[in-house]
Amino acid sequence: MKNEAEFIAGGGVTTPRGFLAGAVKAGIKYADRRRLDLGILLSETPCAAAGLFTTNKVKAAPVLLDIDRLKKGTARAVVMNSGGANACTGKQGMADAIETAALAARHTGVKPEETLTASTGVIGVTLPMERIRAAIPKIVLTREGGHDLALAIMTTDTVPKEAAVKADGFTIGGILKGAGMIHPDLATMLCFLTTDAPVEAAFLRKALRKAADISFNMMSVDNDNSTNDTAVIMANGMAGGGMIKKGGKRAEAFQEALNALCIYLAKESARDGEGATKLIEVKVSGAASLKDARLAARAIAGSMLVKTAVHGSDPNWGRVLAAAGRSGAEVTPEKMELYIGGTGVVKDGEPVPFDKEEVVRHLDGKEVTIALNLHLGRWAANAWGCDLSEEYVKINAEYTT
Amino acid sequence: MKNEAEFIAGGGVTTPRGFLAGAVKAGIKYADRRRLDLGILLSETPCAAAGLFTTNKVKAAPVLLDIDRLKKGTARAVVMNSGGANACTGKQGMADAIETAALAARHTGVKPEETLTASTGVIGVTLPMERIRAAIPKIVLTREGGHDLALAIMTTDTVPKEAAVKADGFTIGGILKGAGMIHPDLATMLCFLTTDAPVEAAFLRKALRKAADISFNMMSVDNDNSTNDTAVIMANGMAGGGMIKKGGKRAEAFQEALNALCIYLAKESARDGEGATKLIEVKVSGAASLKDARLAARAIAGSMLVKTAVHGSDPNWGRVLAAAGRSGAEVTPEKMELYIGGTGVVKDGEPVPFDKEEVVRHLDGKEVTIALNLHLGRWAANAWGCDLSEEYVKINAEYTT
Repeated sequence: MKNEAEFIAGGGVTTPRGFLAGAVKAGIKYADRRRLDLGILLSETPCAAAGLFTTNKVKAAPVLLDIDRLKKGTARAVVMNSGGANACTGKQGMADAIETAALAARHTGVKPEETLTASTGVIGVTLPMERIRAAIPKIVLTREGGHDLALAIMTTDTVPKEAAVKADGFTIGGILKGAGMIHPDLATMLCFLTTDAPVEAAFLRKALRKAADISFNMMSVDNDNSTNDTAVIMANGMAGGGMIKKGGKRAEAFQEALNALCIYLAKESARDGEGATKLIEVKVSGAASLKDARLAARAIAGSMLVKTAVHGSDPNWGRVLAAAGRSGAEVTPEKMELYIGGTGVVKDGEPVPFDKEEVVRHLDGKEVTIALNLHLGRWAANAWGCDLSEEYVKINAEYTT
Repeated sequence: MKNEAEFIAGGGVTTPRGFLAGAVKAGIKYADRRRLDLGILLSETPCAAAGLFTTNKVKAAPVLLDIDRLKKGTARAVVMNSGGANACTGKQGMADAIETAALAARHTGVKPEETLTASTGVIGVTLPMERIRAAIPKIVLTREGGHDLALAIMTTDTVPKEAAVKADGFTIGGILKGAGMIHPDLATMLCFLTTDAPVEAAFLRKALRKAADISFNMMSVDNDNSTNDTAVIMANGMAGGGMIKKGGKRAEAFQEALNALCIYLAKESARDGEGATKLIEVKVSGAASLKDARLAARAIAGSMLVKTAVHGSDPNWGRVLAAAGRSGAEVTPEKMELYIGGTGVVKDGEPVPFDKEEVVRHLDGKEVTIALNLHLGRWAANAWGCDLSEEYVKINAEYTT
């Protein structure tokens, strides 16, 4: 494949030229006061910027603020916190988001209207503004600060998710805070992407949407978003070269690099789902339409019965077919062909004899692949999820307490 | 309320006049050979009959057979088994369903085309026909056999679900096999309803649909059905009196009695969801449309984050608002009013101070009520679910093994 993006070892959100970051322990959630929970991402120069946000009708204050501020297609800084979502917090919540952005703007020297904010954590509790006021001036922004920022936005994530890719003279980096269990009513996903490529704002927005459609949106189900889901990209152009825009010379290279980065971050997020012990990759092919392929792949990856079966290494393939059948995608039961790992288990809609031990061995691994060919057309889609364990319940039964 | 249905103590599917049932231990799932797993429901006289079936495109053989046989609006017997779903079993599966019905027809003396079949259990395994052939002749049908039949269709249910109501000279009875965890990709629901009322077939079908819409369909999410979901009603008219039909004298009484019975069975099923320790009742009011009320109620009752919070008695009300926000229903965050138990926790979309101990005490109980007023219109709907426990994962991680 031409234009193939190359991952940069140890790369992250401050790998692209001109981006700085830093984080501190603000004690936003007092019980977690020994961990980083408040940070800033900053570009040394103005950026084209674009964002994608939750489709939930209940939107957190930072989401509403960012949607408004990104209308002009620029941004230079993002202040972000874990420990509190600032959602369902009414007028006070919006005032707090505006003040937090203003404090970050003053600290970094950029304009408030170029400063975005993002929050994650428990819903319905206002932010402890006195601690945020005290902490923001202490944030030290450096070219190496991306890793601390990745740590600061973690909630139930067990590892930070960060990566960077390079292609055709530019670099794209990113950090992501996991999407809980990667399930319909998922926990918040926050993703911040940076690039030193010069990108036109309109193209940047479309490129982010395209990349999200095959990455973040394939580890969840449409419209089933948290109050705070956010993906933001900032492009400062410091790598130089001609402007990247629709139909332009480097447009395809940029899109492919962005796709690769977003898919990587989505997979790492699925792998680190709450209580997860395995990554599940679902590959649907032969669908009658792209929409069908995506519907079926997501339904299988999101099925609680599939997730629990994978958790128990139980080759209960009927649950996969049933999930596809209720997904809304066009399916013809007699045409379905299913593989678990490399092993065929269903052909022409009927069970075929298979080596159960081999399938169980695959299911016992850390990465489980489920491939379903619908044999109805030429469309394909991949989705990612994780197994559902007892640990997930433990994590979510006592989240606020 | 006029026409109020009265529940009959100890009532069930053979409480209405002229219905017989019985069950045996056929050993369909060999490991469970000490439990009842195969049974027959029979009316002594011809019946008007109607059914509702899964909308999953992958339909089990018994479902396909029943849909066909119910086209003429009559049926007299149903043969049913647990231990195997006879789904994704191809041509052999359909042959087995037809043979099972034929064996039951021969045993009961009714016509094969008046005999329905229903199966529940693991998908993708053909039925052990030699055991079924040996067992069916041993089924003894009695007027007291309803309870055994309720036991025979249980899978992960911990208690049989059965009830009967009387109203205006007739009786309606029913048994139900639980809907797993009452969640999008739920386990199979089987429900068999009987009545001695004389009911016109067309009205019977519509009455069943209406009752299901406010009961079974409110403990699950539309289109998210198993391969085998089935609800069948048979009316033999032995109670006498004028034919019940649209606009007729007793139509309303019949509908209300059927509603009450189906809601009772749905609630008992939710209460006995896999791993459940609590029943969750969600009451949405003030919706802009009936569809909105149902969407919001179901989204809340089905939310994993709500379910886990209830399990941990965690008053994490933000998850309720977030579920409503992503449900597809029209909501205005600033208008939402939320009660947990009798305690108001949100008004005008903002948290109000509340007695946390009181709410935790309510959440610690066996029945949790969540009431959300959207303040947008006059429509209301109730939905039922259960908490999500570690036990659910254990049950579903090793189902086939």
